[in-house]
Amino acid sequence: MADVSFNAALIVGAGSGLSASLARVLSKDGIKVSLAARSTGDLDALVKETGARAFACDASQRTDVDKLFAELDASSSTPDIVIYNASYRTRGPFVELDPTEVEKAIAVTAYGAFLVAQHAARRMLPKKHGAILLTGASAGVKGYAQSAPFAMGKFALRGMAQSMARELSPQGIHVAHVVIDGGIRSARRPASPDAPDSLLDPDAIAETYMHLIQQPRSAWAWEVELRPWVEKF
Amino acid sequence: MADVSFNAALIVGAGSGLSASLARVLSKDGIKVSLAARSTGDLDALVKETGARAFACDASQRTDVDKLFAELDASSSTPDIVIYNASYRTRGPFVELDPTEVEKAIAVTAYGAFLVAQHAARRMLPKKHGAILLTGASAGVKGYAQSAPFAMGKFALRGMAQSMARELSPQGIHVAHVVIDGGIRSARRPASPDAPDSLLDPDAIAETYMHLIQQPRSAWAWEVELRPWVEKF
Amino acid sequence: MADVSFNAALIVGAGSGLSASLARVLSKDGIKVSLAARSTGDLDALVKETGARAFACDASQRTDVDKLFAELDASSSTPDIVIYNASYRTRGPFVELDPTEVEKAIAVTAYGAFLVAQHAARRMLPKKHGAILLTGASAGVKGYAQSAPFAMGKFALRGMAQSMARELSPQGIHVAHVVIDGGIRSARRPASPDAPDSLLDPDAIAETYMHLIQQPRSAWAWEVELRPWVEKF
Amino acid sequence: MADVSFNAALIVGAGSGLSASLARVLSKDGIKVSLAARSTGDLDALVKETGARAFACDASQRTDVDKLFAELDASSSTPDIVIYNASYRTRGPFVELDPTEVEKAIAVTAYGAFLVAQHAARRMLPKKHGAILLTGASAGVKGYAQSAPFAMGKFALRGMAQSMARELSPQGIHVAHVVIDGGIRSARRPASPDAPDSLLDPDAIAETYMHLIQQPRSAWAWEVELRPWVEKF
Repeated sequence: MADVSFNAALIVGAGSGLSASLARVLSKDGIKVSLAARSTGDLDALVKETGARAFACDASQRTDVDKLFAELDASSSTPDIVIYNASYRTRGPFVELDPTEVEKAIAVTAYGAFLVAQHAARRMLPKKHGAILLTGASAGVKGYAQSAPFAMGKFALRGMAQSMARELSPQGIHVAHVVIDGGIRSARRPASPDAPDSLLDPDAIAETYMHLIQQPRSAWAWEVELRPWVEKF
Repeated sequence: MADVSFNAALIVGAGSGLSASLARVLSKDGIKVSLAARSTGDLDALVKETGARAFACDASQRTDVDKLFAELDASSSTPDIVIYNASYRTRGPFVELDPTEVEKAIAVTAYGAFLVAQHAARRMLPKKHGAILLTGASAGVKGYAQSAPFAMGKFALRGMAQSMARELSPQGIHVAHVVIDGGIRSARRPASPDAPDSLLDPDAIAETYMHLIQQPRSAWAWEVELRPWVEKF
Repeated sequence: MADVSFNAALIVGAGSGLSASLARVLSKDGIKVSLAARSTGDLDALVKETGARAFACDASQRTDVDKLFAELDASSSTPDIVIYNASYRTRGPFVELDPTEVEKAIAVTAYGAFLVAQHAARRMLPKKHGAILLTGASAGVKGYAQSAPFAMGKFALRGMAQSMARELSPQGIHVAHVVIDGGIRSARRPASPDAPDSLLDPDAIAETYMHLIQQPRSAWAWEVELRPWVEKF
Repeated sequence: MADVSFNAALIVGAGSGLSASLARVLSKDGIKVSLAARSTGDLDALVKETGARAFACDASQRTDVDKLFAELDASSSTPDIVIYNASYRTRGPFVELDPTEVEKAIAVTAYGAFLVAQHAARRMLPKKHGAILLTGASAGVKGYAQSAPFAMGKFALRGMAQSMARELSPQGIHVAHVVIDGGIRSARRPASPDAPDSLLDPDAIAETYMHLIQQPRSAWAWEVELRPWVEKF
């Protein structure tokens, strides 16, 4: 259908395994992929594999995000799909938390998402077309002990996502928030043979992101919660 | 993947447009489809089109549901996909509601889902494989004025779904609850040309059901909320 | 204030420790208290202590509830405070649950609340004054494994409470749902000296009920969640 | 009871009508009250009436909050009750929001609450005693269109509150989050005679705050939602 055709994707927080899975499946679908990460050094292999372009960008810095979108515009890569995967957390007893780290957790996890989403929405609104996917966590629906900063960041992200969905969906922009509940499988954190599929496979998560992107607008989901079959909740 | 291969589906509450869409897409995928409805008279065309079999069953009646599953077993149609779409509602000022109607709303919307899901789970557990999808409504997450009976039924359904997901997911059964928020397009309720896609297209809903059924077990959703892009929430 | 003056209370499910605490504090405040329970045999001491009257009533039976309110009306005890504490639960693996027990769990926990609340509301509406408090449980906001029937009953109760609050609050009836999360202290279940206050003191719960009853209507709560300070959630 | 005795309260965001109501009722109860506000000029009358002390403090500034608590300690006013009422909001179409204003909304509404709550908790933990009340809004549970910044701030506040409750309640500190849903009556915003009690009376809100502060620890509420009887939700 006409309303589910896309040209260019931007993935922010591109260093994660989920971002790599998304870059692969999006580029395989013929979508031009741009990757943004604080440091692009680790992205070389992915860039080579997928043909994506990599951009250095600290998403919590307004000037960095301004520059990123200017570059995307200049290179005909203005995205109609934006996926925000960046986050930062710090843990510990509430009374021992470093306020600077708390600020950073909110800035990277939520404020950066605002900066990126606002630039994205400005470009999508005139065409009444686009998808903005925000990667949440169980911390965004449940505030865990010794984890107030991550709760603050992810709750704020969810509040923004819901506000955006209410405002922008009727203008043609599909805003979705995906709650990832559980650990994500990676090279550093392989699945245990004793507990198959007990960590989220990033390729499996990417399938749901692609499904959301392709949903017809008569039946959009604004939120999905994903967890391994054996995860307690 | 092996864990997302299915053979036979049962759709309860088969008279709806969503059930018809599901019957079409499931049978197209080579899955044997059984349809259950209180009255099967309206299902002739769908049966002819999809090759599904139709069964008369009042899902709120224990003997009916027992008989239904005995017939499914006898005809090698024991389902590994079960979709419960049946519901009943009554509306009006709280003090004017007919208690008999309230009982019926709970019985059809929630208790029938229990009867069907229990039979289904008994057959799925030994194989540690199956999907049970329960069709909810915005009334299951928000109790609206003048609609207590439907709230009671759909809240109860959601509570059961969440309890089942916690218990049965780690045993290989994917339980999912889909919150439909908005009107569903049908022959009797066509979409307005002035408000395109303002009613949920049953085919679009069915796409999300199929996505849920096919999710790898490392990243299962237990709940998805679907609404038209222009629906207020 | 005028809007927080009450005359007569009805407590259903009167056999519990919470009901006893409520009967004591309400009667001490000069409110005429009626107690309803399936069996009134255990209520003798409480009746003697508080001056309350006891009525035999299976709240899940329509004729019983009709009769109860006729008796209350006839004895000038028509309640402007109604508290519903009755519930029934059954537990076990989902596939082993007895459908008859599931029906009973829903009937006592939710349908009985409907019957009682409807009679109550009919009497309160003409005066645009009254309070209906419904005792929920953590099972009403979270469906636990092996506990689908209680989830169904308590979710349904919560859905009804929310629907009633939306409809009846603007007509002067304060509807509130109290989520009790944790065990309640009783003679049979005393608090452990090693874990002080780790069970809810029924007198402490009753304080919050009394607070809700006395809230001025410009700032009503429709839901409160109570748990012991050390309870995990 | 011993566990509900308090000595000194700190109210941050002291310029509001709710803060004034709280100052009055707390000081009437013999509790020493300290008021913190960005500007203390408007607090003169309240200080005179209640005997409270006023402190200038921008709660979003770490050095200000450090200084505030140092002064409280030095004047034997270390609080065992802390109420955070400060917030800042900006509204408008998502694409037109000023990022600096978004930062400020999060900083005042949520990060300042963190700074204050952390100082408070450090002083309460050694005594295993204290109450921290955080004033939320419906924006903290529902992200409204054209109001993303306030949603971000209030969602973040709620996430922090829930995380704190899970961590600090078992250490004797009562953390509660109060969702105010509706407008608050004030001199500038008087109640309409046509719609009595359709705005929250700050004195009525204060009654619930006092109830929360006095709850025995065997039955603590971590969240309460207050709205006028006629408010839509």
